[in-house]
Amino acid sequence: MPTLHDVIAARVNVYLHLRPTPLYRYSGLSELIGAQVWVKHENHLPVGAFKVRGGLNLVAHLAEQERASGLFTASTGNHGQSIAYAARAHGVRATIAVPEGANPAKVAAMRGLGAEVVFHGADFDSAREWIAGIASAQGGRFVGPTEELLIHGVGTYALEIIEDLPEVEAIIVPVGAGSGVCATAIVAKAINPAIQVIGVQSAQAPAMQKSWAAGKMLSADMSTVAEGLATRVPFANTQRIMREYLDDFVLVEDDAIENAILQLLEHTRNLAEGAGAASLAAAIKLKPGLAGKKVVLVMSGGNLSVNQLRRVLARSSTSDGAH
Amino acid sequence: MPTLHDVIAARVNVYLHLRPTPLYRYSGLSELIGAQVWVKHENHLPVGAFKVRGGLNLVAHLAEQERASGLFTASTGNHGQSIAYAARAHGVRATIAVPEGANPAKVAAMRGLGAEVVFHGADFDSAREWIAGIASAQGGRFVGPTEELLIHGVGTYALEIIEDLPEVEAIIVPVGAGSGVCATAIVAKAINPAIQVIGVQSAQAPAMQKSWAAGKMLSADMSTVAEGLATRVPFANTQRIMREYLDDFVLVEDDAIENAILQLLEHTRNLAEGAGAASLAAAIKLKPGLAGKKVVLVMSGGNLSVNQLRRVLARSSTSDGAH
Repeated sequence: MPTLHDVIAARVNVYLHLRPTPLYRYSGLSELIGAQVWVKHENHLPVGAFKVRGGLNLVAHLAEQERASGLFTASTGNHGQSIAYAARAHGVRATIAVPEGANPAKVAAMRGLGAEVVFHGADFDSAREWIAGIASAQGGRFVGPTEELLIHGVGTYALEIIEDLPEVEAIIVPVGAGSGVCATAIVAKAINPAIQVIGVQSAQAPAMQKSWAAGKMLSADMSTVAEGLATRVPFANTQRIMREYLDDFVLVEDDAIENAILQLLEHTRNLAEGAGAASLAAAIKLKPGLAGKKVVLVMSGGNLSVNQLRRVLARSSTSDGAH
Repeated sequence: MPTLHDVIAARVNVYLHLRPTPLYRYSGLSELIGAQVWVKHENHLPVGAFKVRGGLNLVAHLAEQERASGLFTASTGNHGQSIAYAARAHGVRATIAVPEGANPAKVAAMRGLGAEVVFHGADFDSAREWIAGIASAQGGRFVGPTEELLIHGVGTYALEIIEDLPEVEAIIVPVGAGSGVCATAIVAKAINPAIQVIGVQSAQAPAMQKSWAAGKMLSADMSTVAEGLATRVPFANTQRIMREYLDDFVLVEDDAIENAILQLLEHTRNLAEGAGAASLAAAIKLKPGLAGKKVVLVMSGGNLSVNQLRRVLARSSTSDGAH
């Protein structure tokens, strides 16, 4: 199981290529929740999401042979961009499999970072199985979404939170595959077990939450609009960590997530993707229990497409004057 | 006239309260301009704009008597929030005059930062004259928008640009009162006179540009939607610096600025306010001269209101697939 020591050891690999992200307090959000609310701006990172921290740590640990043969992974989202970014930073080749019909904007972003993008199969799972086979055949390094080296790197943001705000009482973290929430829990509980670590997933993709609540691995339907939360099958290693350390794990409706994107625009002027806004949706749901506390919302990423943004804004025609 | 030395001396006052902002390269913008394009993310700062650097430096220099009597200024925008933020950071009282009917969102933001906001007069000029009188009567410290201590603090972002990208060839800076472009020019020319420093203002608020081009102080009509560029009367001290150091100063139409906000959303997933997007609009206009160069666009601020964002998105119904 990853430890605080692993996270501390990852810092040098992470900070060679990026700077700590800001933790800002917002009076508008504090009033909304009835607590003292800070946002951890992982959306300010390169490629716009927390995952790049994990990618940078993983690539820094590659053996000479792995560097030479290159990285292979599957992703249509932030994981792929993160691996592409880290690979480029280290001069390593990255090949990323995406399903046919993958979002051209994200494909362009990965290619813009120098990765080779290969289309294969009708869905993510078939792309992933295929690229894992390619990696194996070529002696390349396949990268899964919850590898420990990724978790160690991601944990650097949790350490930044506690360094900037040692008196933090609760941290709310969006959960996809679980690397963010596991890293946060490991760091927070090692430093101060009283810090509450709360996960949040969409009710339209509840596999990780249901598995955690049941204490066994359960798949679930997945139809969320928040790509970063879209996990259909739970991951065993992150489930194990979550069972050990997580204080709570809530579900929020996609509707509440889209409202939270709008509220974050109004109060912070930051663009959050669905996953990045889920922490605010959870805080709204948990409001009575958070009253008066020092609460950090992790804005895990900002990669909302212009079309998604347009849909969110169409939900509300509230004039600015109302805020 | 401010010097590089003044800017270096301001760093300690600035970095006590914020971290350097990222300078990211974007492949999409590089393709768009036909150059190597980086964005300096001043929109990631507290209060969402570069001005907070100046405020922090100014407040750090207050005499004991000034600290006790408090700060007085007028603003409906980023300047007011910046002074409010810096005053709070130093435990100093700030009183900010705004005209009747000022945007309630911005008033709430300044109050959220602990400032006292006072409504007075029909427009900005009458609010400013009134608050200057109050400051004088109470022995308080009135803060104007282009004071040298503000320019020294603001220059810290220019130094960060050159430290992160020593080979930079051109820096494009939005101009309102001129503190950002002057600070950038002073720093860049002191370090490497070959670095081009280019200002940009809206054609719907061209007073600073026309004064610079004519070599004399000229007022101009002002109707721009970009509040951060909305200067009706030029400022003498920043004009003096600009005449000495600026390589070019272009005007772009408000229409081009709104298009640039949309392009920045698509390529960087960052929300830029009008002023913050003007540097991209200028780069598009100057494309032939920038070909192949290493260009930094200063995204000076991100305080676009939700209604402004809604209007910008309505300009285009382009599907994400097109990008």
